[in-house]
Amino acid sequence: MKLGDLARQIGCELEGDAALEIHGPAPIDDAGPGEVTFVANPRYQSRLKSLRASAVILAPGMDAPGVAILRTEQPYVAFVRMLGLFHEPLRPAAGIDATAHVSASARIGSRAAIGPYAVIGDDVTIGADARIDAHVVIYPRVTIGDRFTAHAHAIVRERVTIGHDVKLQPGAVIGAEGFGYIPDEKGVRPIPQTGTVVLEDGVEIGANTTIDRAAVGATRIRRGAKIDNLVQIGHGCEVGESALLAAQVGLAGSTKIGPGAQLGGQVGSAGHLTIGAGARVAAQSGVPNDVAAGAVVSGYPAVDIRLWRRAVAAWARLPDLLRRVRQIERRLGIRAGSDE
Amino acid sequence: MKLGDLARQIGCELEGDAALEIHGPAPIDDAGPGEVTFVANPRYQSRLKSLRASAVILAPGMDAPGVAILRTEQPYVAFVRMLGLFHEPLRPAAGIDATAHVSASARIGSRAAIGPYAVIGDDVTIGADARIDAHVVIYPRVTIGDRFTAHAHAIVRERVTIGHDVKLQPGAVIGAEGFGYIPDEKGVRPIPQTGTVVLEDGVEIGANTTIDRAAVGATRIRRGAKIDNLVQIGHGCEVGESALLAAQVGLAGSTKIGPGAQLGGQVGSAGHLTIGAGARVAAQSGVPNDVAAGAVVSGYPAVDIRLWRRAVAAWARLPDLLRRVRQIERRLGIRAGSDE
Amino acid sequence: MKLGDLARQIGCELEGDAALEIHGPAPIDDAGPGEVTFVANPRYQSRLKSLRASAVILAPGMDAPGVAILRTEQPYVAFVRMLGLFHEPLRPAAGIDATAHVSASARIGSRAAIGPYAVIGDDVTIGADARIDAHVVIYPRVTIGDRFTAHAHAIVRERVTIGHDVKLQPGAVIGAEGFGYIPDEKGVRPIPQTGTVVLEDGVEIGANTTIDRAAVGATRIRRGAKIDNLVQIGHGCEVGESALLAAQVGLAGSTKIGPGAQLGGQVGSAGHLTIGAGARVAAQSGVPNDVAAGAVVSGYPAVDIRLWRRAVAAWARLPDLLRRVRQIERRLGIRAGSDE
Repeated sequence: MKLGDLARQIGCELEGDAALEIHGPAPIDDAGPGEVTFVANPRYQSRLKSLRASAVILAPGMDAPGVAILRTEQPYVAFVRMLGLFHEPLRPAAGIDATAHVSASARIGSRAAIGPYAVIGDDVTIGADARIDAHVVIYPRVTIGDRFTAHAHAIVRERVTIGHDVKLQPGAVIGAEGFGYIPDEKGVRPIPQTGTVVLEDGVEIGANTTIDRAAVGATRIRRGAKIDNLVQIGHGCEVGESALLAAQVGLAGSTKIGPGAQLGGQVGSAGHLTIGAGARVAAQSGVPNDVAAGAVVSGYPAVDIRLWRRAVAAWARLPDLLRRVRQIERRLGIRAGSDE
Repeated sequence: MKLGDLARQIGCELEGDAALEIHGPAPIDDAGPGEVTFVANPRYQSRLKSLRASAVILAPGMDAPGVAILRTEQPYVAFVRMLGLFHEPLRPAAGIDATAHVSASARIGSRAAIGPYAVIGDDVTIGADARIDAHVVIYPRVTIGDRFTAHAHAIVRERVTIGHDVKLQPGAVIGAEGFGYIPDEKGVRPIPQTGTVVLEDGVEIGANTTIDRAAVGATRIRRGAKIDNLVQIGHGCEVGESALLAAQVGLAGSTKIGPGAQLGGQVGSAGHLTIGAGARVAAQSGVPNDVAAGAVVSGYPAVDIRLWRRAVAAWARLPDLLRRVRQIERRLGIRAGSDE
Repeated sequence: MKLGDLARQIGCELEGDAALEIHGPAPIDDAGPGEVTFVANPRYQSRLKSLRASAVILAPGMDAPGVAILRTEQPYVAFVRMLGLFHEPLRPAAGIDATAHVSASARIGSRAAIGPYAVIGDDVTIGADARIDAHVVIYPRVTIGDRFTAHAHAIVRERVTIGHDVKLQPGAVIGAEGFGYIPDEKGVRPIPQTGTVVLEDGVEIGANTTIDRAAVGATRIRRGAKIDNLVQIGHGCEVGESALLAAQVGLAGSTKIGPGAQLGGQVGSAGHLTIGAGARVAAQSGVPNDVAAGAVVSGYPAVDIRLWRRAVAAWARLPDLLRRVRQIERRLGIRAGSDE
């Protein structure tokens, strides 16, 4: 593709040679001749002097000597558009592999691509244009919408309901039994996990993530929510529309995450609480109580992030503070630990 | 089922119409006509006014206008009994699927249900009434007791020993090699992981949980212990009888967890230490040292939970405390940071 | 093996009967007659009086009454050598199982052992002496070096590049799509993850660990790095030579880990930062900013471990400190919270 064509297609003004031949995008440190990179984060600004790329996507006010510039207010958005232009995702051909094990009572929509050793159980319904890779297991009585993608080894347990445009990364487990036990005379006894899981339209689930079925009713992931790798969603949780959960988040049972909320990596939440719409929880935080809509919290236990920042700064001065209080006590003749 | 019959079977006194037809249990927010819910947690009490359920299980002293009441001292226990009454778990029929790959030297007990593409290696012994779902892999020389359940993609590595009534959720990995390296001239070199894993009777393991084999001897999960999803058990650990480990817990090598101990979600423990019988560790805590039997600890590093609560409350007042100490110093004419 | 032969082979001086017959190594609490154990950690020293082992490997200065002693400056190194002598790892015979699904365009080196239901896609290249267990899935266009080991259910996504002597534990997922979304009018839209993953020579990856492909370029795990179970490596990360990442570590996108760095269990790192060569990060720490080469850090946010230790000790005294400051204020007639 010519650089001039690229500029037009990703909505940038070109400052440079429109006839340059471009092979594709590349990260800033690897980009060489024929490649295009971008800089949006100011911390990478210093590297603009030593670029080997043929062109760089930049916001107004930044400059890169000796290379063509694709100018835009939103370099990252333009770069993402470019990724789409050059991306050739692997698309398996439609067809059901001869080794796939599809129940006679399953109903599969048109143009499905089903890979080797996939297992599709009794009374399963799947919409059109499904892509089901090798070794995926769909248990009986599951219902799935159109344009379903399940990568290798993803598992959907019995009776789960899945909407349109849902994607499961490899090894995701949807609908395992929740962790519920009740004490009895011999130790503990499992509580029947009679409920199910619902993944609504546009939901995406990361690799080896586990979403447990509810004890009763449904664990529900609402429209457009995205969940990263190795996340644990306990039984009876509800994740709101377009919420984003980063890797290794853990939600205990019956947690409610509001629409548009964002949880950083390794966040943990106690059960039976609500994190409000649009709230943001910083990575590694622990949430013991409700979080208000729109709040930004951090820490363990999670508090308003401004308080957290000030308390953390003070925390590093604690050894000094102890010393200062001892000094004051000496000055006043107070014996440390005395109560007067 | 009639409401009167239900009351009798779950041990409640009925206050309402015994002839009402009941379809099943439901969570409080979803329960409609023909369904029964329960309230034990006082935070849900306010919702009793707007119930759409036909009946609610309640402790003495609580009331719900306009719906039948199933009265009991233990609403949750009664509700769990009700779950059992209405639960129809998926039970695959006995039989070995034609595509299962069972070694000629494996000995499988009576009435086994083995799913498509399951792999059972040489010299494996499995007791009666096993349920082994699609794609489960049992490596050679594994010994397993009666009533074994392994859901799709569970893996048991070579030479592992498993007792009776053990259940593996999807993707659980039992007996992978522990993480052990020793420095050498070229970096690090793996330490042979020559040991094994023992899961005793009644153990249940969560989805995508990993339990490593010991370098020497055995990693041992004792009778009745229950382990949730995405938990990591390092090589040489011992988890005591009826202990409960919540999701995403991580135990470094050679940790000992006492009988009846309970670890909250995302707890991490350093290796070569003991968490005593009946101890409880709050979610997300980090345990660097032994924990006494019966102790209740929290935090990172974990301390007695009462101290933790007071210190956390004080922590949030740290910025204020710093200001107050500066004020005192000013009053006394002490220069901050001076040592007199 | 005779004890005298063992002593010679593991480089110890024997104090005891060279003719004793030895069956193998064992952990200190389980070791019985015919077995050899070791003690390096002083906390196990008290158990030397009640050994039932036939011999124990000990450093100079320690003693064990009534059992033979294998004397060496490095008991642990000698014990690891002994593990190697007695270890008989399961080695599947060379050959491709009849049920393995190998593309006609795949090139597999000599002496490969490929298990049941393994799937190897189009245009895959694998070197000599591969061991690929049951249910492993290698997507199309993957390139792999010699002596590759992949245990059951490991997954390698399309176009990934893997060097020599790489080992994947069960359920590892290499090359799933990174977690990248960009806001749009309907919520968020996925960013194409056009890049790949490179695992260099000697890399080992733990069970159910996930290593995401880069949005552009490559996520790169450098020569000899070892990664434990349930670890999450975000898109575009680079893990340096011989680095060690313990279980449940999580790296957000574009993190760089220097050569020889060591991250403890459950450590989390924000993205777009560098942890320097040889740095050590204590378990459960959260890293929000660059860490200098050789630094040793702990906590959330991670700070120098010496400061962390002093601040944590002071933290436990916070309730007492608050009380003392109130006492001083009373003495001085300052109203708490006043600003004079």
